[in-house]
Amino acid sequence: MAQSRRQFLQQVGITGGAGVMYSAMGALGLTGAAETPAYAAPTRIELNGRGRKHVVILGAGIAGLTSAYELRKAGYQVTLLEARKRPGGRNWTVRNGTVEKDLHGNTQTARFSSGQYMNAGPGRIPQHHVTLDYCRELGVAIEPFVNQNADAYLYREGATALSNKPIRHRTAKADVYGYVSELLAKATDQGALDAALTATDKDALISFLRSFGAIGAKADGFAYTGTDGRRGYVVEPGAGLEGGTTATPYGLSDVLASGVGNYFSFEFGWDQAMMMFQPVGGMDRIPYAFEQAIGRDKFVYGAKVLGLRNTSEGVTVVYSTGARPRELKADFAICALPPHIAATVPSNLPDNVLASLRYARPTNAGKIGIEYSRRWWEQDHRIYGGITNSNLDIVNTWYPSSGFHGDKGTVIGYYNTGANATAYGALSPAARLDRAVAQGTKIHGDVYGRDIKASFSVDWAGTEYSRGSWVGWPSQTDSTYAALLEATGNIYFAGDHLSHAIAWQHGAMVSARATVTALHTRVTSR
Amino acid sequence: MAQSRRQFLQQVGITGGAGVMYSAMGALGLTGAAETPAYAAPTRIELNGRGRKHVVILGAGIAGLTSAYELRKAGYQVTLLEARKRPGGRNWTVRNGTVEKDLHGNTQTARFSSGQYMNAGPGRIPQHHVTLDYCRELGVAIEPFVNQNADAYLYREGATALSNKPIRHRTAKADVYGYVSELLAKATDQGALDAALTATDKDALISFLRSFGAIGAKADGFAYTGTDGRRGYVVEPGAGLEGGTTATPYGLSDVLASGVGNYFSFEFGWDQAMMMFQPVGGMDRIPYAFEQAIGRDKFVYGAKVLGLRNTSEGVTVVYSTGARPRELKADFAICALPPHIAATVPSNLPDNVLASLRYARPTNAGKIGIEYSRRWWEQDHRIYGGITNSNLDIVNTWYPSSGFHGDKGTVIGYYNTGANATAYGALSPAARLDRAVAQGTKIHGDVYGRDIKASFSVDWAGTEYSRGSWVGWPSQTDSTYAALLEATGNIYFAGDHLSHAIAWQHGAMVSARATVTALHTRVTSR
Repeated sequence: MAQSRRQFLQQVGITGGAGVMYSAMGALGLTGAAETPAYAAPTRIELNGRGRKHVVILGAGIAGLTSAYELRKAGYQVTLLEARKRPGGRNWTVRNGTVEKDLHGNTQTARFSSGQYMNAGPGRIPQHHVTLDYCRELGVAIEPFVNQNADAYLYREGATALSNKPIRHRTAKADVYGYVSELLAKATDQGALDAALTATDKDALISFLRSFGAIGAKADGFAYTGTDGRRGYVVEPGAGLEGGTTATPYGLSDVLASGVGNYFSFEFGWDQAMMMFQPVGGMDRIPYAFEQAIGRDKFVYGAKVLGLRNTSEGVTVVYSTGARPRELKADFAICALPPHIAATVPSNLPDNVLASLRYARPTNAGKIGIEYSRRWWEQDHRIYGGITNSNLDIVNTWYPSSGFHGDKGTVIGYYNTGANATAYGALSPAARLDRAVAQGTKIHGDVYGRDIKASFSVDWAGTEYSRGSWVGWPSQTDSTYAALLEATGNIYFAGDHLSHAIAWQHGAMVSARATVTALHTRVTSR
Repeated sequence: MAQSRRQFLQQVGITGGAGVMYSAMGALGLTGAAETPAYAAPTRIELNGRGRKHVVILGAGIAGLTSAYELRKAGYQVTLLEARKRPGGRNWTVRNGTVEKDLHGNTQTARFSSGQYMNAGPGRIPQHHVTLDYCRELGVAIEPFVNQNADAYLYREGATALSNKPIRHRTAKADVYGYVSELLAKATDQGALDAALTATDKDALISFLRSFGAIGAKADGFAYTGTDGRRGYVVEPGAGLEGGTTATPYGLSDVLASGVGNYFSFEFGWDQAMMMFQPVGGMDRIPYAFEQAIGRDKFVYGAKVLGLRNTSEGVTVVYSTGARPRELKADFAICALPPHIAATVPSNLPDNVLASLRYARPTNAGKIGIEYSRRWWEQDHRIYGGITNSNLDIVNTWYPSSGFHGDKGTVIGYYNTGANATAYGALSPAARLDRAVAQGTKIHGDVYGRDIKASFSVDWAGTEYSRGSWVGWPSQTDSTYAALLEATGNIYFAGDHLSHAIAWQHGAMVSARATVTALHTRVTSR
């Protein structure tokens, strides 16, 4: 068995690449968890004798780039039309000198220091996303992204005993887990769960709860006292006789009323659990690596698509990079524009397909990057990366995941969505900073407003060529959505919106792979 | 209030350094959690006019190095006597060419590739330890150490339904938290906890449990079904219509019987919760940075201490670097040797102090570093750093926290303590590797035994000049322990064993700071 299993794995390893290898291991129960989506990249050999097909790709975001990259590997001719002057779409890293005029009429020029940057779009990559496979394949160096930090804060404005002050994640977690354990141990011991638990179950559960909640023994009423140090200390354990001094935990009712525990599940999420990663130097290392691998000469930047038509021989795309519209004929098109923008392109797409494009519901997200000339979060607050979550309109504060102990650093002062994002977006960039600083000061103190070197903010709904952060669908199982998953004549679609990993680069990549596979299967079966 | 608080902080910031600043902020309730131990480094000015005192330091481990560094900053003359040919003591990074003969008679020469290394002693630094302050001060670059990874495994050999197969941390956590939430929600809803909870408490608790455990609503019996994806997928969410396929959770009794939940509290620990860090390039960057800051000429390597005497004028130390013993006279000595080794040095220390040194109880720990020429844990298992914990005698497997996506990497194949460490230590280095590979193969499959480039193992009880990994004390509050916290004549003691952070560099550092402070206070008050 071991021998034949190994042989099987060697075979799929040889023919299918690492993705299939991992998938096959998952199928055999070897890896103990989910499989990476199987993907067999088209190979040049399969195209032999069929002529070289030309595919025009609308949009050089991650879906367009992935499509072009995979098609190029198989020998297709590709042309990418991109309205922006750069690849990546929402994968956008703002550095010193970045200039952007938004749809509100604000023009910002970033004045960050050399080496400082802000990932305005995607900022983190879970370890199971194919995004990392492309980083590996393209030689994009990665480093950990700190998505969880026991010493970052939870902040809840309100009227509870825990409100209006920063609470360390570790403190909130210790108190919530402590009380939950105490309550469940008592209920279990008193027989309240005898219908659900055997005597053996009860012993095992109580044993777990004593460890999980750091609660006392039965003789102590399973009491949570917070004395084991995991919630933090008033005086840390130190030299000599200093064993550490703990504070009394917050009260049970106060902890429950505060709602601090409702953020914990974030870190258990399929897409959010650590470890997470980021490219060294900025997320846009990915699109620029794609651009280099595909070939700069395949890109037309500043190209606005004015028309898209299926023809009897292929497709015709009309675009403009300035004054005079140009016409481009190709065998196929892959439309990797946001669906709500694709819907506005003059075309001969049938009404049902246009209705499907309009079925997408754009939403909004906003971010501000604030560069400080002193890493006060490390020096004063002892926070090395991670996220402080609040119920303020800034919602999330991200401390930088690199440059530890440096003399400067760029904090994401807000990462918010929906109405919060739109409220900040309606402000001038200067007013966004002022508001973000006022809110951040509630959590971090006056230090939040000092030593600010530069800032830059993005409102995705107000950003040309995106007009939203990502989209949702009323349904992802019905025929309206599904109409975009197949070719309309010679026109294909791709994007994170056509996946179940919306708002992730992974979604754009697996969608592009599916589209490339469908296109290639059609070409090779002719 | 805000004004005067700021003024106060500025004052302590000016006079006390970052440690005191942070401490003061903690005292004011500004940081929301524990304070770093306050420490005011001795300054050169305070010594003015009192002459330049000479302190001989026995042992250039972290406590000796910190002592020498702080004393040098204040203008003291220091001499470090170190039996090894390198600084750091148990802070030891093994690289290509490292040669070590152990007390069992085994001589190992490390054959790691360039850039590959193994931290044989300390391997991780919590973000609140002063170790990071010294990294910052000494210019030692740091990077995240992955101490927690949802995709690493838990492995329990045994007879339960979850035994003998690797379980992802995320899967174990989802199932345990799911069932715990279901049970507590039911008990709460049925009134079992009405004596402890108000109606408001109950609503808040159930709201928390629904999020924390991803359980159903009351109408669904608060059932845990594992369908939200946090435990992982059989088929991941992907392109088009692929919404992901989850497996049925393990059964409640099986999950409880397996004991997988009993490891969770590790990651809540005061000293173990993420974020954690490591120096870039190896933990020994810290001792070498200390050596450079102190001055290489202050070190006598290969120096075995043969005698230690209090005299009427100071101290006399006899040591040998080879043939002829040498005598060194100084004003003070700081003995930063492991206590059980200090006890064997011929001296005129009084019996009660010798009894205190012998009061320490050395324990053991072992590690093996295995360099692989392929990062199979990333490519096949999709694990990017972190720890797999097992109940096998290897106990912990550490995947490397750096070099992601490289073509090689060094796994810590076992990090175990006590009897497990001693059992491996009794084997030859080759047999240790064989045994570690046999155990690791149970978890990871045959890949664990392939592509091995080199290995190196350490048994701390069998390592000369350490003879143990760290020590414990029968009591850290009694007079036997406390006798080592004060000077015996002109002889002081320092080490992690004289702290409440034993086995951490932090402990050695805060002990050294306390000792330097005591010595300096004595000198300046004469």
